[in-house]
Amino acid sequence: MKLGPGREFDRIRALLQRLGPDADQIGDDCSVVPDGPGSLVISADLAVEGIHFRREWLSLEEIGWRAAAAALSDLAAEGARAVGLMASLGVPAEAAEDAAADVMGGVHAAVGAVGGCVLGGDLSRSDQWIVGITVLGRAVRPVTRAGARPGDQLWVTGTLGASRAGLAALLRGETPPPAAREAFARPKPRIASGLALARAGATALLDLSDGLGGDAGHLAAASSLGLHIQLLQLPVAGPVLVEATRAGVPPAVFAALGGEDYELLAALPSSFGPADAAAMQRETGVALTLIGECRAGSGVQLRLGQDAIALPGFDHFA
Amino acid sequence: MKLGPGREFDRIRALLQRLGPDADQIGDDCSVVPDGPGSLVISADLAVEGIHFRREWLSLEEIGWRAAAAALSDLAAEGARAVGLMASLGVPAEAAEDAAADVMGGVHAAVGAVGGCVLGGDLSRSDQWIVGITVLGRAVRPVTRAGARPGDQLWVTGTLGASRAGLAALLRGETPPPAAREAFARPKPRIASGLALARAGATALLDLSDGLGGDAGHLAAASSLGLHIQLLQLPVAGPVLVEATRAGVPPAVFAALGGEDYELLAALPSSFGPADAAAMQRETGVALTLIGECRAGSGVQLRLGQDAIALPGFDHFA
Repeated sequence: MKLGPGREFDRIRALLQRLGPDADQIGDDCSVVPDGPGSLVISADLAVEGIHFRREWLSLEEIGWRAAAAALSDLAAEGARAVGLMASLGVPAEAAEDAAADVMGGVHAAVGAVGGCVLGGDLSRSDQWIVGITVLGRAVRPVTRAGARPGDQLWVTGTLGASRAGLAALLRGETPPPAAREAFARPKPRIASGLALARAGATALLDLSDGLGGDAGHLAAASSLGLHIQLLQLPVAGPVLVEATRAGVPPAVFAALGGEDYELLAALPSSFGPADAAAMQRETGVALTLIGECRAGSGVQLRLGQDAIALPGFDHFA
Repeated sequence: MKLGPGREFDRIRALLQRLGPDADQIGDDCSVVPDGPGSLVISADLAVEGIHFRREWLSLEEIGWRAAAAALSDLAAEGARAVGLMASLGVPAEAAEDAAADVMGGVHAAVGAVGGCVLGGDLSRSDQWIVGITVLGRAVRPVTRAGARPGDQLWVTGTLGASRAGLAALLRGETPPPAAREAFARPKPRIASGLALARAGATALLDLSDGLGGDAGHLAAASSLGLHIQLLQLPVAGPVLVEATRAGVPPAVFAALGGEDYELLAALPSSFGPADAAAMQRETGVALTLIGECRAGSGVQLRLGQDAIALPGFDHFA
């Protein structure tokens, strides 16, 4: 849609050019969301410079990708496919003329990688970089955190701890190994795994944004039962070994405390077995690992072999 | 939905209590959006402390109301009814424990006043107060800015300039007259007027967030025609007179430069007459005033009586 005159709108025009054909519908008071099968689901995520990332750790494209991926991960955790997202950027006064377009380029790439598009957004000045993302998806059967039953088994996608390993190196001012940096800077929302898990009958699903240690507690609380997890079964990411040794903790404990992996934790009926997991891995390209089970009770019991372990989650207001 | 343990989640629990029964669905990775007739439309708006408001001008509830109302106004400008919104708050470290809940209370009141609900959101630390709102609505026939035709007439809802009059007093450190303060602090999104204008056959519709001077240019550009507006016909708000005199400009010019009134500018076929406007005013309780017309050409021509007038709009990046 054609915009009126003005320097602000020149900026918006430059920014929309990065979005290609996606942008043709943008510029009106609202964007129209395409119809589709299933329920519409929505989630919002705010990424703030100095809280969720530091400017010197990430390129502008990575700031956009990372914020969008974190929000898209919530769609994966609902068993939804991605329709699109709204992106609101707060841009510091000292940023270069095309910095907002660079951030939006990363947002666009992240949502495009899972088959969605940028539906619209807003632009403002602010002291810090701010990337506010609201994602829209569709789910034939939205899978909440609340449906797990005693006897269900707990599975986790991918590997855990690489993002935390990358963060640990960045906090020391070092360059992380490539796999750790990639996990931190360009996490992959597990949309395909979420859809496959929903189809396979997942009774509860959430994404590990704050780490298994903290997020498992939400699944337990919402489903009103207890989770029993064996940390030795955790699929620990390669870059964890060096960092865990440096920190003097077992690799599985380091991985369980690692936020921002954006892997999925799923409760599945016990009829779902290793052959089903192998088939899903072939379909999605993402591993699926059995790590524990649901029992009557409450809270999360973590064991490392025979030892009971207590882990804090990540708390923004601690 | 039951949340897990942790201080962050204690805060979220306190905040959700302010939302009453709305909040029962909140706490999962996504919120499910209710089905309904018509197209789903969406818009996002970012309000940043120091850019869109100053903390000392507004109560926390008003900060929330104002940010939500600004975003809801985009639904009015699409001829849509409100379904609900997602609210992402950035909260300064020095804010009181229940400050975020106070802001969310204002958001809740604003969306409730137009029949919608809070669907979900996010919470983060930040240097400034940030209120990121994404609104969802439904429109049987979404009215864009792009459909005006030569011969259509231009109508505006309510009165203009009161919010700017309030802002002018606040910038001097004075207390604005009550009507001016109310217009600035608690603007009313014109959802009912937008629905009525869409039903009456509006060919183009937008909200005056940046002032008639700037926003009229967007309608002209999107519809590929020229707008001719007679400023002497503008419905000037009462509080404008004192401020315009102080500024040494005609009241209509002061009002046309006033952003954040969130009134609607509509193009309607010439068959829509004064009797139709009077009937709509009785239905919605909001005045409708004829201020000009659409002609072949481009841009916006403003006249004050016989004199041509050039006005800048508000530009965030000027």
